[in-house]
Amino acid sequence: MKLIVREYDLDSSEPAVIIHDDDCIVLGVKVHDRVKINSGDIWVSLVGNSDTIVERGQILIPNIYLKRYNLKDGDEVEVTHSPKPDSVVYIRKKMDNKTLTKEEIYAVVNDILEAKLSNIEVSAWLTSLYINGMDLDEISHFTNAMVDTGDRIEFERQPVFDFHSVGGVPGNKVTPIVVSIVAAAGLMLPKTSSRAISSACGTSDFVETFCNVELSAEKVKEISENVGAVFAWGGSMNLAPVDDIVIKVENPLGINPRAQMLASIMSKKVAIGATHLLVDIPMGAGTKIPTMDVARAYVRDFTDLGHKLGMHVECAITYADQPVGQAVGPILEARECIRVLEGDNHPGSVVEKACALAGMILEMGGIPNGADKAKEILESGAALKKFREVVAAQGGNYDIKSSDLVPGQFTQDIVATKAGFVHSIDNKSIVQIARAAGSPSDKGAGLLIFKKRGQRVEKGDVIMRIHADNEAKGIRAKELALRYAPIHIEGMLIEKG
Amino acid sequence: MKLIVREYDLDSSEPAVIIHDDDCIVLGVKVHDRVKINSGDIWVSLVGNSDTIVERGQILIPNIYLKRYNLKDGDEVEVTHSPKPDSVVYIRKKMDNKTLTKEEIYAVVNDILEAKLSNIEVSAWLTSLYINGMDLDEISHFTNAMVDTGDRIEFERQPVFDFHSVGGVPGNKVTPIVVSIVAAAGLMLPKTSSRAISSACGTSDFVETFCNVELSAEKVKEISENVGAVFAWGGSMNLAPVDDIVIKVENPLGINPRAQMLASIMSKKVAIGATHLLVDIPMGAGTKIPTMDVARAYVRDFTDLGHKLGMHVECAITYADQPVGQAVGPILEARECIRVLEGDNHPGSVVEKACALAGMILEMGGIPNGADKAKEILESGAALKKFREVVAAQGGNYDIKSSDLVPGQFTQDIVATKAGFVHSIDNKSIVQIARAAGSPSDKGAGLLIFKKRGQRVEKGDVIMRIHADNEAKGIRAKELALRYAPIHIEGMLIEKG
Repeated sequence: MKLIVREYDLDSSEPAVIIHDDDCIVLGVKVHDRVKINSGDIWVSLVGNSDTIVERGQILIPNIYLKRYNLKDGDEVEVTHSPKPDSVVYIRKKMDNKTLTKEEIYAVVNDILEAKLSNIEVSAWLTSLYINGMDLDEISHFTNAMVDTGDRIEFERQPVFDFHSVGGVPGNKVTPIVVSIVAAAGLMLPKTSSRAISSACGTSDFVETFCNVELSAEKVKEISENVGAVFAWGGSMNLAPVDDIVIKVENPLGINPRAQMLASIMSKKVAIGATHLLVDIPMGAGTKIPTMDVARAYVRDFTDLGHKLGMHVECAITYADQPVGQAVGPILEARECIRVLEGDNHPGSVVEKACALAGMILEMGGIPNGADKAKEILESGAALKKFREVVAAQGGNYDIKSSDLVPGQFTQDIVATKAGFVHSIDNKSIVQIARAAGSPSDKGAGLLIFKKRGQRVEKGDVIMRIHADNEAKGIRAKELALRYAPIHIEGMLIEKG
Repeated sequence: MKLIVREYDLDSSEPAVIIHDDDCIVLGVKVHDRVKINSGDIWVSLVGNSDTIVERGQILIPNIYLKRYNLKDGDEVEVTHSPKPDSVVYIRKKMDNKTLTKEEIYAVVNDILEAKLSNIEVSAWLTSLYINGMDLDEISHFTNAMVDTGDRIEFERQPVFDFHSVGGVPGNKVTPIVVSIVAAAGLMLPKTSSRAISSACGTSDFVETFCNVELSAEKVKEISENVGAVFAWGGSMNLAPVDDIVIKVENPLGINPRAQMLASIMSKKVAIGATHLLVDIPMGAGTKIPTMDVARAYVRDFTDLGHKLGMHVECAITYADQPVGQAVGPILEARECIRVLEGDNHPGSVVEKACALAGMILEMGGIPNGADKAKEILESGAALKKFREVVAAQGGNYDIKSSDLVPGQFTQDIVATKAGFVHSIDNKSIVQIARAAGSPSDKGAGLLIFKKRGQRVEKGDVIMRIHADNEAKGIRAKELALRYAPIHIEGMLIEKG
């Protein structure tokens, strides 16, 4: 039947068109069924129904679809019932712990992208992947399916180096340092990063405090080939777009199935044409990778999958029992990152981690003694110069200085209530406190940790400072910090006489 | 913050309140988060957001919640952010194939009922149950949790007999016959039935063609205790209401996890206070239970679970390779059912099945030679008399005759294109054809199968007749019947000389 399009901006969990109850009966569809919509483009959508928010003869279409299919309010479309897609059968097959073929995996990925599958079905898919897993051939097809349903960047300049951190450790601001060192050594590293999902601050969240991270694919190509590097937000390009849909279902469930995680990461590397990849695997309590055994399994997965995909992959297992450096939060992390590039050797954890990782990439590129060479490039100022070139190319100020970055003015100090040594720092609580302070959406929000593991603390020392862009959030974050007490201080062992 | 209630009838897949984008920011919530709503009653709902269909300061609340919480358009409610419920953690635990405690299972069931869990989460729960299963203790807690979140009926008259068919075979109209025979023998059997979900016609779908099936709990109690039986629609009472929510997520996935299935069935039996239960397990190609091994596993599950729940359970594995009787569809099944009660011995499959099952219940009630006794009660007219008493008590006509029931006037005949013997009948295609004809919502729609397995067919014989309430649906059903050719005819083996 023919229906008139009405614009609709409801951001519910389920992307669906809304049709009047009576029209649904005529069409023979009910909630959760699908309709085929012919508006020149032919596409399929899930159906919701109502008899108040939509009139007979109309169809409410969410903004995202209007844009995608060049529709506007008042257009007429032809709407018919559409049968359940075959991909539902393949999801059942994965529930039954069977191995899926390439074609089946492509069908699922394609139908997720085209919103032919409901969130109920995507949830069943992810839960099945979480429980039953995929073998390496399936993950390889899965990766390629995610690549093929998005765009690719093809660089004239070869080889293409890339770097990825599995994440999970707060304050991990090493990416722009690693990338700047590598590019300064003459290798090309077009780095795409994400924003925070459940963490306190993603790389893109702090890089955008000093330059634009929303670059088009053309811009990424141009800057990388000319300057040798970018620090771009991956979401601004259409690389493996299915990932963004899946994340919206993964997050409420709090799962990230191994197959999905590997395919998500590797699909973006394949899409950008990476030939050499270093994966940073932060291992430690309160991270995604709590033990050495789990870390080693990840190493095996990444290298084997890289092999299948024709990419040279190496992995670094890094120390992540506590935040990297002192700062957590966009401006605070940006400032600490640039300080290191300016030659400040403190905090050592940032300098050491960045040089160790950059060194591994340099060696992949045929440059011997990588870590020493990386340190040399950092200390010479060449990394800072390269960093500034990238910042300028991304619309930032070439003369950027760490002192230009001013964190939130509302501060709250957390003071040691006893003397002793820092025994451990709880990553998860640190993330919660930084988020309560407003990070990552409030750019000035976050916290500084003054005392790290093993350091001596006197009663009354400031061990942590919270920054916030508004007072109420600062106070809320302090309350949380006092409740969680994430920095654990223990006394020396006293021998009893 | 305080928000003004606006009524909202959107029947999307996810029951959620809708709040303006700006108000969401102030509340600190986003899509999939939860808010606590204080309107006298305090309850939690998922959040959707929009800046066109809702104004600032308002909250769109679906009708079902308005009714449940005695709210009306224009009321003011206090809305605050609500944390993720603990039940999400227990769903994760089941994903990890751990055994859940009684308290954990109760939390999940309660949060599903109160809509604190999103469909994404319920889908993950069902998928986990499907893959990882539950042990019998867990299923027993699950059953009790479903009972305790709904109402119960407590009969003065004891014992309480009950009967349930696992379903999956078309044309299974034996329930009112079984119940009438048992009640005529002096045992009380307050039978609640369902409507069709994916089948062609549920028991309630055909019973409501001759009497009211939407009875309150009080009415079920009253009629059962006075007359000895009811044929009620289970959905009209609030017995184990979680089941109805879960079914809406199960259906699109096409799964019915064993633990969920057992708990669903048994919870309704516990809620109605059944002391003795007979379970009919139809076994055959194209049904839920394709083989004898699967059927035997069901028998073990039902009897063991019954034991844990303090109920005496027996099971009957019945033949289900083809439809029971000739008729499929509400009026057609009702007519065939009443004909048997009136003394018509045809079709034999209906008479045999009903007497065998009724006989088992009679024996559970201490009446020896059950099947013979059941046949005797049926042939004596006592079952018909009891049936009429129940019909009259449920608002139907005591003098109901099978000839009062007139099926859809638009008929389409399917004719044999060759001679031979009926080799098999495909249940699944029969269901599709009956649904295409309009069953179960069009009461006169359905089909009659004139030739069953093993019967001789001549070329040109009418093997099947489709009835419909409107011509277009009849034609559509015939097209499907010709495409599916559900009645398979094979020639005799011819020896070659």
